Amino acid sequence: MEIRVIVPIVGEKWLEDARQTYAAHAQPGTRVSAVAVQKGPASIESRRDEALATPEVLRLAQEAEREGVQAVIIDCMGDPGMEPAREVVSIPVIGPALACMHLAAMLAHRFSIITLPPSSIPGVEEQVWRYGLQQRLASVRAIEATVLAIKGGHDAVLHMLTEAAARAVLEDGAGAIIPGCTGMAGMAPKVQAALAERGCEVPVLDPPAVAVKLAESLIEMGLSHSRHTYPQPPAKEIVGY
Amino acid sequence: MEIRVIVPIVGEKWLEDARQTYAAHAQPGTRVSAVAVQKGPASIESRRDEALATPEVLRLAQEAEREGVQAVIIDCMGDPGMEPAREVVSIPVIGPALACMHLAAMLAHRFSIITLPPSSIPGVEEQVWRYGLQQRLASVRAIEATVLAIKGGHDAVLHMLTEAAARAVLEDGAGAIIPGCTGMAGMAPKVQAALAERGCEVPVLDPPAVAVKLAESLIEMGLSHSRHTYPQPPAKEIVGY
Amino acid sequence: MEIRVIVPIVGEKWLEDARQTYAAHAQPGTRVSAVAVQKGPASIESRRDEALATPEVLRLAQEAEREGVQAVIIDCMGDPGMEPAREVVSIPVIGPALACMHLAAMLAHRFSIITLPPSSIPGVEEQVWRYGLQQRLASVRAIEATVLAIKGGHDAVLHMLTEAAARAVLEDGAGAIIPGCTGMAGMAPKVQAALAERGCEVPVLDPPAVAVKLAESLIEMGLSHSRHTYPQPPAKEIVGY
Amino acid sequence: MEIRVIVPIVGEKWLEDARQTYAAHAQPGTRVSAVAVQKGPASIESRRDEALATPEVLRLAQEAEREGVQAVIIDCMGDPGMEPAREVVSIPVIGPALACMHLAAMLAHRFSIITLPPSSIPGVEEQVWRYGLQQRLASVRAIEATVLAIKGGHDAVLHMLTEAAARAVLEDGAGAIIPGCTGMAGMAPKVQAALAERGCEVPVLDPPAVAVKLAESLIEMGLSHSRHTYPQPPAKEIVGY
Amino acid sequence: MEIRVIVPIVGEKWLEDARQTYAAHAQPGTRVSAVAVQKGPASIESRRDEALATPEVLRLAQEAEREGVQAVIIDCMGDPGMEPAREVVSIPVIGPALACMHLAAMLAHRFSIITLPPSSIPGVEEQVWRYGLQQRLASVRAIEATVLAIKGGHDAVLHMLTEAAARAVLEDGAGAIIPGCTGMAGMAPKVQAALAERGCEVPVLDPPAVAVKLAESLIEMGLSHSRHTYPQPPAKEIVGY
Amino acid sequence: MEIRVIVPIVGEKWLEDARQTYAAHAQPGTRVSAVAVQKGPASIESRRDEALATPEVLRLAQEAEREGVQAVIIDCMGDPGMEPAREVVSIPVIGPALACMHLAAMLAHRFSIITLPPSSIPGVEEQVWRYGLQQRLASVRAIEATVLAIKGGHDAVLHMLTEAAARAVLEDGAGAIIPGCTGMAGMAPKVQAALAERGCEVPVLDPPAVAVKLAESLIEMGLSHSRHTYPQPPAKEIVGY
Repeated sequence: MEIRVIVPIVGEKWLEDARQTYAAHAQPGTRVSAVAVQKGPASIESRRDEALATPEVLRLAQEAEREGVQAVIIDCMGDPGMEPAREVVSIPVIGPALACMHLAAMLAHRFSIITLPPSSIPGVEEQVWRYGLQQRLASVRAIEATVLAIKGGHDAVLHMLTEAAARAVLEDGAGAIIPGCTGMAGMAPKVQAALAERGCEVPVLDPPAVAVKLAESLIEMGLSHSRHTYPQPPAKEIVGY
Repeated sequence: MEIRVIVPIVGEKWLEDARQTYAAHAQPGTRVSAVAVQKGPASIESRRDEALATPEVLRLAQEAEREGVQAVIIDCMGDPGMEPAREVVSIPVIGPALACMHLAAMLAHRFSIITLPPSSIPGVEEQVWRYGLQQRLASVRAIEATVLAIKGGHDAVLHMLTEAAARAVLEDGAGAIIPGCTGMAGMAPKVQAALAERGCEVPVLDPPAVAVKLAESLIEMGLSHSRHTYPQPPAKEIVGY
Repeated sequence: MEIRVIVPIVGEKWLEDARQTYAAHAQPGTRVSAVAVQKGPASIESRRDEALATPEVLRLAQEAEREGVQAVIIDCMGDPGMEPAREVVSIPVIGPALACMHLAAMLAHRFSIITLPPSSIPGVEEQVWRYGLQQRLASVRAIEATVLAIKGGHDAVLHMLTEAAARAVLEDGAGAIIPGCTGMAGMAPKVQAALAERGCEVPVLDPPAVAVKLAESLIEMGLSHSRHTYPQPPAKEIVGY
Repeated sequence: MEIRVIVPIVGEKWLEDARQTYAAHAQPGTRVSAVAVQKGPASIESRRDEALATPEVLRLAQEAEREGVQAVIIDCMGDPGMEPAREVVSIPVIGPALACMHLAAMLAHRFSIITLPPSSIPGVEEQVWRYGLQQRLASVRAIEATVLAIKGGHDAVLHMLTEAAARAVLEDGAGAIIPGCTGMAGMAPKVQAALAERGCEVPVLDPPAVAVKLAESLIEMGLSHSRHTYPQPPAKEIVGY
Repeated sequence: MEIRVIVPIVGEKWLEDARQTYAAHAQPGTRVSAVAVQKGPASIESRRDEALATPEVLRLAQEAEREGVQAVIIDCMGDPGMEPAREVVSIPVIGPALACMHLAAMLAHRFSIITLPPSSIPGVEEQVWRYGLQQRLASVRAIEATVLAIKGGHDAVLHMLTEAAARAVLEDGAGAIIPGCTGMAGMAPKVQAALAERGCEVPVLDPPAVAVKLAESLIEMGLSHSRHTYPQPPAKEIVGY
Repeated sequence: MEIRVIVPIVGEKWLEDARQTYAAHAQPGTRVSAVAVQKGPASIESRRDEALATPEVLRLAQEAEREGVQAVIIDCMGDPGMEPAREVVSIPVIGPALACMHLAAMLAHRFSIITLPPSSIPGVEEQVWRYGLQQRLASVRAIEATVLAIKGGHDAVLHMLTEAAARAVLEDGAGAIIPGCTGMAGMAPKVQAALAERGCEVPVLDPPAVAVKLAESLIEMGLSHSRHTYPQPPAKEIVGY
């Protein structure tokens, strides 16, 4: 079984790091490979960044399918390109945010998302509406950090994340927490433990882990997205791709 | 890793059958055990049946936790006792319907549930509301059969199920199909293939498979339901249980 | 006309007290009788407590119908067993919470529920969703007390209830208040008066009164719940009940 | 106890008829009086008709309160003037449609409204949205008749109403039926019986009965609408009324 | 092209002022005329005020249509009489609130309305529900002023409005601001500038401008409201109008 | 005043045609220019097509702003790139579908969209959810045609469109009709007339006209989208664009 992680940001710098992040959650028999887009932004913090990464996500999803890979994960909580990529391949295409929101809704009555930077809150709210889960959203909170900054400053980020999560539970009534950036990978267990110490016994999801488990589950069940919802696009002339 | 299937109907008759149904979807290292309620109905087709099975579901969930089992699955699409059982144990308690509805919502824009008998439709609609997924529901359709009847009549049931599923796709706009009874276990791939032949390329979920995969995933991630949403009940005098 | 109050907690201690609470709101010609479950919890503060009281609620509802009683009220704001009980009898089965939420929605644009203890808030929110009234919910607030404690400490409870209700009106925009426990019976008029003194002229519902009036109204109109929504369960073997 | 029925159509022709319709459902001790608007339309079949009846509804509600009447019912399923009338009086002001929709939602998972004429369907749908009950609406169906016509043609109307109600149950999944015009008063039990013969065991509400029972209940509980939601309008110059 | 502004408050005092307010936003070729109701309140701050203005709004809308005017605007954020007026004329009838809410929803993910006085908040919330836009509402906030007071005290009102708008953005997550009274006409650009200085770059709509632009647009496209949704009322006897 | 139409399909073939389509609805003083994407698909019928057109839409929106153009319209009912384009420019970016859905919701209680081909229905339903207008949607219907085919076969398309629209009104309860493809430009008045002949008096919107009127209105009011909802993306390295 092989799962392909598509990193929607350019550069090889974080690629092996990303691969290992996902591989750490895979079963022994699962091979996890990772590729990065050749064109696109250096990080994803806006709808523009998502839009510019998307054409490459489609190409890489098709490449993965041709190579016999059985599922694709897009390494970003914006799930950039997930819907169009589902049209162009038959293997599962997984957005970690979609997977986390539904898992959180199975474990708690309401969940909060802790995103960054604060200016991205409206976009995350729209994403929740798009996935039809607004009734289950307790709040979207943000920490004051850029995506690139969190790579180097784990302790400070961890502190901010825990603080925002605690307020989400105590003030907004969240019963589960979703870190809003795959760059926060690995922090979930620490945040969950810190919250429990403060009396907030809520699950904190680790987006890469959730995405890998969903990918493996779908492969094992022989399931993928609906071709009725995501029909194969008609063949036509396309320029520049 | 051990997963315990709680069969909420009395009698040993279907127990090993149920165990094998779930075990068939487990990973090599996963042990699947099954127990049946000692008190309760012979089948579950009403809210009354669910209510009378529930006290035993709670007892058996606690027994499972005491025995070191890591997750519990309730073998019924009514998910009887799932919420109260989550209060009394810390290990994951999985209802196949909850798991299937969220998975379907991840794979398609709208899903239909094919339940039985027709009189159970309103109860299933209420269940969808309770899980907050009404926006994603295309329809609840039913086949004219009793739960006990489907055990013996696979071919006729398969035909009715396929027919109802096709109408759900073509008339109601469903993008995914959920069989509404765990007694339909194993029919999903056949229905999916039959639908595809008729031009409806939609995923048809197999509830036991979906439940087992969710159980394994949660165990591997060290996650369970929220104690904030499902707090441990205060200790008190309880008579008769 | 006879209305039967089913007290879903064990013991005779509160039974006559409960009967009188409901009888105080009945018309002269209405007889109010009360029975308590023989098996179940000493108080209801969790979904587990509700689940363990439910089988007896069903039995007592059937007993009431056999005895010619014309309506049944379940004496708890969790409305434990209301839906399954409606399947097994044709006479009206009334949950005070269902009755109060709809009445509040007829009198105000949004309502708040003041429940206890704080850990029960998520469960009450889910109940509002189940009844499809989330748009009309201003907030669920809680006071720091156990159900058993409120029996003895009326003044302190009254103060906490008023305080929480005032915040619901002033901070959450509630236009009506529902006490979230039938153990708060009789406090409503005092809370309503205390709120009015603070400039909050909102109706505060008394759950037992609301339930009795609904029962009498249904009996007089010859109406009961829908057999389409709550069909009679098929006859089958049931063990242990 | 006195309840005042405000008939929002001009003329004395139907006044005593209306009074008796409501009085038939009152308790022995309840006096039911009826008054008709002096200005307004001859029947209510449009938003215009409602708008032109409303100023008089306000005047008559105030007159009723001054005369010591304890509750007001507006004799029309458009509930014309209910919200503004609640601002100008402290006694309960009841719209039969509001009362019926909430009662139906307490007795069934979804309800249908059978209105007339067909062109009024969009307005009824908007009314359901305004009351926040769209999730519980199965359908709005209509019969081909004018409001004035139904006064004389009970048998034909009864047949059409039963036919439409049966389709609402069987095709739209309604679990309860609300006749959409108070002119259909008294037909409910016959329609309910006719539906039961066809296997549709659903409650059919009689709007005048439901309104009277709600009025009596509110009076007995000492409750009325929220002054927070319906605040008393500031004193000001008003010309022409 | 002629647009008629119907001022739903009595008196000639504000009429020319209102006319100029709307005319200032019209294209060179658009003639803007204004008429005031002959009967009705001196200002609109309650549902009663709206109800008493409505019959005249209907009459004046019909008069406008007879005179060849191509669109009607109702000069009040309660949109009094908009729906019934649409039944009696075929030319567009525009409520500024309806127009502003939809425009705000096109420009931002969520909007807030700043109304007055505070007691009018529940009515504004109900209006948002009626228009089906609750998902897009961030909050309804109010300033402590009467409608008549704001005519004379622009600076104080401007300050309060800006303050409330800033809190709507920063605390409630509003992405656009709608002043809740047409009496605040002309303040929008100043509030928008003041908010921008505080780092809140959100559009602040000017209700009269939005209404005029919608009227002109509809006239130029030859569009009006749906006769299916707003059918012409049947001819009938009407007394007193 | 200059409005720039961005045609999200490659090739010059339809460019002047598109320009004239929009220019026909502009005021005398409005200049309408049109540009086509250099990279992208030959038509837009899938999410993939939208995704591959989007990077160029962003580039062309920025180019338009640099050139002093005051508003941008994206010539496709998928509104491809609208949200990310709003992040990168301050001038209004208008999607015709967003504009049409909100205008339809202002003119009727519910609207239907007639799209093509049938496989695109799920994507259109998701778009309505994303815009938060599901409550106002009567149905999405489709005609059996490809986007490219409709360019040459106006009469046949007109017939199919009218037929589908009539069914949307009569069977689904639509009060307004939105053609789901800008390639159907100019057909709206004919469909509206044909529907009226069949007794369905509903507005049929012409998407290019609606988009031009919204663009002009926003320019004249000095309004644009919210920078709070669509914040300017942080500067960063972007490869390949």
